[in-house]
Amino acid sequence: MFKKILIANRGEIAVRIIRACHELGISAVAIYSESDRDSLHVKLADETYCIGKTSAKDTYLNINSIINIAIHSKSDAIHPGYGFLSESSTFAKTCEEFNISFIGPDYRIIDSLGDKSNAKETMKNANVPIIMGTEGEIESKEKAVEIADEIGYPVIVKASAGGGGKGMRVARNRAELVHAIEDSEKEAENYFGNAALYLEKYLENTRHVEIQIIGDNYGNIVYLGERDCTIQRRHQKLVEESPSPALNDRLREEMGSAAVRACRAVNYNSLGTVEFLLDADNKFYFMEMNTRVQVEHGVTETITGIDLIKEQICIAQGKNLSFSQGDVKGNGCAIECRINAENPYRDFMPCPGKINKYIAPGGIGIRIDSSAYSGYTISPFYDSMISKVIAWGRDRNEAIDRMKRALGEFVIEGVDTTIDFHKKLMENKIFRSGNFNTKFLEENKIL
Amino acid sequence: MFKKILIANRGEIAVRIIRACHELGISAVAIYSESDRDSLHVKLADETYCIGKTSAKDTYLNINSIINIAIHSKSDAIHPGYGFLSESSTFAKTCEEFNISFIGPDYRIIDSLGDKSNAKETMKNANVPIIMGTEGEIESKEKAVEIADEIGYPVIVKASAGGGGKGMRVARNRAELVHAIEDSEKEAENYFGNAALYLEKYLENTRHVEIQIIGDNYGNIVYLGERDCTIQRRHQKLVEESPSPALNDRLREEMGSAAVRACRAVNYNSLGTVEFLLDADNKFYFMEMNTRVQVEHGVTETITGIDLIKEQICIAQGKNLSFSQGDVKGNGCAIECRINAENPYRDFMPCPGKINKYIAPGGIGIRIDSSAYSGYTISPFYDSMISKVIAWGRDRNEAIDRMKRALGEFVIEGVDTTIDFHKKLMENKIFRSGNFNTKFLEENKIL
Repeated sequence: MFKKILIANRGEIAVRIIRACHELGISAVAIYSESDRDSLHVKLADETYCIGKTSAKDTYLNINSIINIAIHSKSDAIHPGYGFLSESSTFAKTCEEFNISFIGPDYRIIDSLGDKSNAKETMKNANVPIIMGTEGEIESKEKAVEIADEIGYPVIVKASAGGGGKGMRVARNRAELVHAIEDSEKEAENYFGNAALYLEKYLENTRHVEIQIIGDNYGNIVYLGERDCTIQRRHQKLVEESPSPALNDRLREEMGSAAVRACRAVNYNSLGTVEFLLDADNKFYFMEMNTRVQVEHGVTETITGIDLIKEQICIAQGKNLSFSQGDVKGNGCAIECRINAENPYRDFMPCPGKINKYIAPGGIGIRIDSSAYSGYTISPFYDSMISKVIAWGRDRNEAIDRMKRALGEFVIEGVDTTIDFHKKLMENKIFRSGNFNTKFLEENKIL
Repeated sequence: MFKKILIANRGEIAVRIIRACHELGISAVAIYSESDRDSLHVKLADETYCIGKTSAKDTYLNINSIINIAIHSKSDAIHPGYGFLSESSTFAKTCEEFNISFIGPDYRIIDSLGDKSNAKETMKNANVPIIMGTEGEIESKEKAVEIADEIGYPVIVKASAGGGGKGMRVARNRAELVHAIEDSEKEAENYFGNAALYLEKYLENTRHVEIQIIGDNYGNIVYLGERDCTIQRRHQKLVEESPSPALNDRLREEMGSAAVRACRAVNYNSLGTVEFLLDADNKFYFMEMNTRVQVEHGVTETITGIDLIKEQICIAQGKNLSFSQGDVKGNGCAIECRINAENPYRDFMPCPGKINKYIAPGGIGIRIDSSAYSGYTISPFYDSMISKVIAWGRDRNEAIDRMKRALGEFVIEGVDTTIDFHKKLMENKIFRSGNFNTKFLEENKIL
């Protein structure tokens, strides 16, 4: 049994993991950059280590320092959270070399799925529908144009090592494609240290629907329903919900089975998410697989009652999955709004700074995941998320009404936030109808 | 449809009711005493009225002023919360006379059940098991001694108009009984303006198990499982949970049916609770019926998913109950700890004052109902509750572990609190075993 887990992350996800540790009776070790000294994850941990100044490279991405602290603190395992090193096979492998459990899948699995073009090949072989496009990486602009001509515009270029909308561009003709490749290459190099891109048919009028899956070391793989993350701005998720308003039980079962098939193909042995695009004809296509916990995992926890992080930790300890497919039942509807320190009236410009007053909503059906509190200063060095609000309801309407109520009582003074944006979104008729696609925010003025 | 509801209460229950109003799209009118000016319920309401200085008599118990504000603000209805005027048939009747809906049962029902000795008679006729004792009120000390001799000691005297442990005393012999009557009469007169007492056999080694019920104006009455409130200190509930560790499905159904029978006997038409004592032989006895929402209602909401306050409001509007007995399903286990501004190391002495820092727990499975925030001053004039923490788990162990985790992260600086007490209680082996009775806190040192 793990006695101590080091959390190689910060902010709300570090807090989330500390909570899981404590419920399991495991000590939590926090690392923090100098600018995160007052963070809630530092206050809640049982042991804390300052790892460096501010830059992610020197701190939460610093494999050597993290491993050293894990050894020094006699941590049995490391939880990487999301972002930072969570999908670094190098980090996972290094942990293994130092006999520290990496709480995530085997590093070889991360490797094979992390390369997005390679992952597509795997999915194709597992009979999971994929989107037409390049087989592997884009070899040259000329070759890309040739393929795009073949499959038809619009197309999208994506970073092989990417995620979070970075290195991603849509092109509607040859000229745009050439520019898109040039721009995305630069961005991918900047963000991921890897300029490799691949190209796909760009499907319009689609929804983003992802399947949460979990597997253990003994071949048990279960899907935990879907999350609909169609409400996006520049490929960044803003709102997630489960169940998806677009799925019926049959389609849910089909997509769930496809996700399990995908995971079985690689002997997947941790928490993970298979992301799909769903078109207007209810056809779905594999987009990518994330081999880590996701920001929006709480939506699934809320309707299934299953603590995904505790399960993930127990699996890494060598335990069997504590439930089977038949035990997973979705209860009601859950919606998450990401509250960011951004000004929605100024193109969502980040707005770090000191929170003078913070009163979170509460009461029936409301879950708050946050590392903020009255007096906390949001650092400009990391992402701008202040809080995740999840509202549960017996049905989608109740969940939306409850979310609106919760947003209405949220007090955050001192920084601009996206609360107003979410409030208006909850009142939007098209959003309430459930009938929208990923272009919704482009095509509809919310504020 | 109600457009506006006045909330004749304060603190966390006023906040709770405002939340329900807002989810239903109804405006909430708050009243407040001068010392409650900075209360959260005042901040969250849509319209607010200062009703007087500080004393409850001049403010939250002031029927005339409350009705005047309701008329002035054009409120369609009044929600009384718990305590204060919530079980005043005079208040309910006055509302009716002014054509304002009282969100609670008909005033005649409050009247008939509010008199505890009369309520016992009603229950007896409805074939609900009652405890042996005086028929009606104690006529004289001599008569009481006579009856006690007949049914055997120990006995308990209780205030007819009572509640919350006031005017309640156990006697183990004649001399104690005479003293108990004298003391309880004084206390009952002080608290309820009514010195009437009744006497019952005092059952030892019992648990306090109550059944949540709800009825509409059309004869639909449903029970929503039980809450176990056995963890008490001087007849004051400290921890509540559902399901009760002492009930099986058969017993739950028996007690539920008895509660429904009791309510049917009086045509009960709102939210209510039937309180029972459960002895070691699984025999249960009617104790009293509360014709209002209870502090611990959130425990039931958490496992059933049903918003009791919204239902209560809708019923008062003349709607049908939105579910039937077959729809009520308990999911997992919920436990509530009442966090009070009291010093558990000094005999739970109240400790009002300013909260300098307040960081509430959050994350998976945690519900917080509170009117506190950083900078809020707890008034010495009202009760000392700061916050209710409800933890949900797939089973009782997970709920307890989660509660312990949540209590561990709760930061309240500036006043003493009962957090430490609850933390230790969650670790106590007897508590964890589920096998305890109402004398548990007397017989076991927690801190």
